[in-house]
Amino acid sequence: MRIATYMHGDRHQVGLVSEDDQSLETLEVAPEVARLGVLGLIQTYGDAAQIAAVPRRAPIALDSVRLLAPIPRPQRNIFCVGRNYHAHAKELSGSVFKASNTDPAAWPIVFTKVPETVIAHGDDVILPVGITDQVDYEAELAIVIGKGGKNISQAEAMNHVWGYTIVNDVTARDVQMRHQQWDLGKSFDTFCPMGPWLVTADSLDASNTRVRCWVNDELRQEGHTRDLIFDLPTLIETCSRGITLYPGDVIATGTPAGVGMGFNPPRYLKAGDRVRIEIDGIGTLENAFG
Amino acid sequence: MRIATYMHGDRHQVGLVSEDDQSLETLEVAPEVARLGVLGLIQTYGDAAQIAAVPRRAPIALDSVRLLAPIPRPQRNIFCVGRNYHAHAKELSGSVFKASNTDPAAWPIVFTKVPETVIAHGDDVILPVGITDQVDYEAELAIVIGKGGKNISQAEAMNHVWGYTIVNDVTARDVQMRHQQWDLGKSFDTFCPMGPWLVTADSLDASNTRVRCWVNDELRQEGHTRDLIFDLPTLIETCSRGITLYPGDVIATGTPAGVGMGFNPPRYLKAGDRVRIEIDGIGTLENAFG
Repeated sequence: MRIATYMHGDRHQVGLVSEDDQSLETLEVAPEVARLGVLGLIQTYGDAAQIAAVPRRAPIALDSVRLLAPIPRPQRNIFCVGRNYHAHAKELSGSVFKASNTDPAAWPIVFTKVPETVIAHGDDVILPVGITDQVDYEAELAIVIGKGGKNISQAEAMNHVWGYTIVNDVTARDVQMRHQQWDLGKSFDTFCPMGPWLVTADSLDASNTRVRCWVNDELRQEGHTRDLIFDLPTLIETCSRGITLYPGDVIATGTPAGVGMGFNPPRYLKAGDRVRIEIDGIGTLENAFG
Repeated sequence: MRIATYMHGDRHQVGLVSEDDQSLETLEVAPEVARLGVLGLIQTYGDAAQIAAVPRRAPIALDSVRLLAPIPRPQRNIFCVGRNYHAHAKELSGSVFKASNTDPAAWPIVFTKVPETVIAHGDDVILPVGITDQVDYEAELAIVIGKGGKNISQAEAMNHVWGYTIVNDVTARDVQMRHQQWDLGKSFDTFCPMGPWLVTADSLDASNTRVRCWVNDELRQEGHTRDLIFDLPTLIETCSRGITLYPGDVIATGTPAGVGMGFNPPRYLKAGDRVRIEIDGIGTLENAFG
């Protein structure tokens, strides 16, 4: 199943996306559930399979609604993983970020983005003028946690996944660098496009899918989750070591090679640029920068 | 005013602490406000001065309630500042954390702790056995934001402060180090004792107060907020550059010299240790480790 969060008229709704991407079947859930989007579903239906039994309304055209991010406002900062594709780690080896990693296979790098960074497919990313002129894109597969837990083993990890979505881990490279810790440079308002919807875990082999990113129709990133340095079970195990994960937590799994910083000279984003991310089996997330 | 969050019987309450620390006057607020603790007050009364006009009940003994953290569950990760006292920066100059800072006066280091790390005065910090054996204390003054905003100037910053409290930014040094980014090593369950209560901004000159920390009655940290590398207005300006701050956000301002890691050999915490933090004008935050 693919589940979208959207405004239909002035109402928050959640619904199933049709196979042809053209229509939505709104789920009959309480308004306070729909207001949280897919997060409301996760909190109400711990098992995504239960969604199949929720009553639905007659299909409406997808272009008659305004898509929101599947989880419009996560309950806490988004966990994000740095330098997690072999080819991307290689492209950074000539940058300032190389020195902090002597053994890339040792432990994942995990930082966060504040929840209010999240915007929807089609929303504009606001360039923080006067604060940074090194804004970069990072196409990423994101895990959405279903069943919470602490000290989740790799063997059990995939049972804790409710679904997947796409995020663009937008980053101000200069700010990321000068604060040493990355959270601020990753947390500017609108810096986390998420969507276009969520795919339930049963509908995608996320360990075996393709991640691509275009800037103004030029292909910049083309990676494959088979190339992850730390695979999905390892990331869930890592983030839950001594730290309780909660339903609806989001873990962005890192970006493939091809970010703007990796070019010589770097190719940062400017007003008017459009970034489009596709992950096979999920869909397309596109946002303009301005 | 000093405002505590507590359980009285099975009810969440907020109330004013008497001058002698012996009693509480419960504020007459709606249950859904009290359930969020001081966060509920901040969201309801944007200006702390309004609290003086809220009806109160007859005093009850402070030892008849169970204190909660003033903000039991922040709305998003806590912003935390690293290496922000001159003497503490010096003690780290021989550690692995030195290399990441060539110019300590350049930009603050900001990382986060997940909201669920927060526990109250008197609660136990759980040592994550098998995950870390390098648990350290960090006594810190914490700012609690009242009026939200983005791109807050230093000149305006203090008008956005609702109050102050104490936090212990408990840290697993080995985990902090091996993930390079610090969020995970700072975010283990129970790793943010906060309290014992909040002091409203009008009642404390936080730029001019003393921060002390004892481990088992041995004085380990004694600092003064005059010694901050980045002062409170600078920290608020920094965290709000391009990032909207919200009412109830918490910014922990960094720790003075004297952490366990600074000793040679290091003196990490072990089961049975008690850590007591005092900040003049706020109170005492004490927690056992086990």
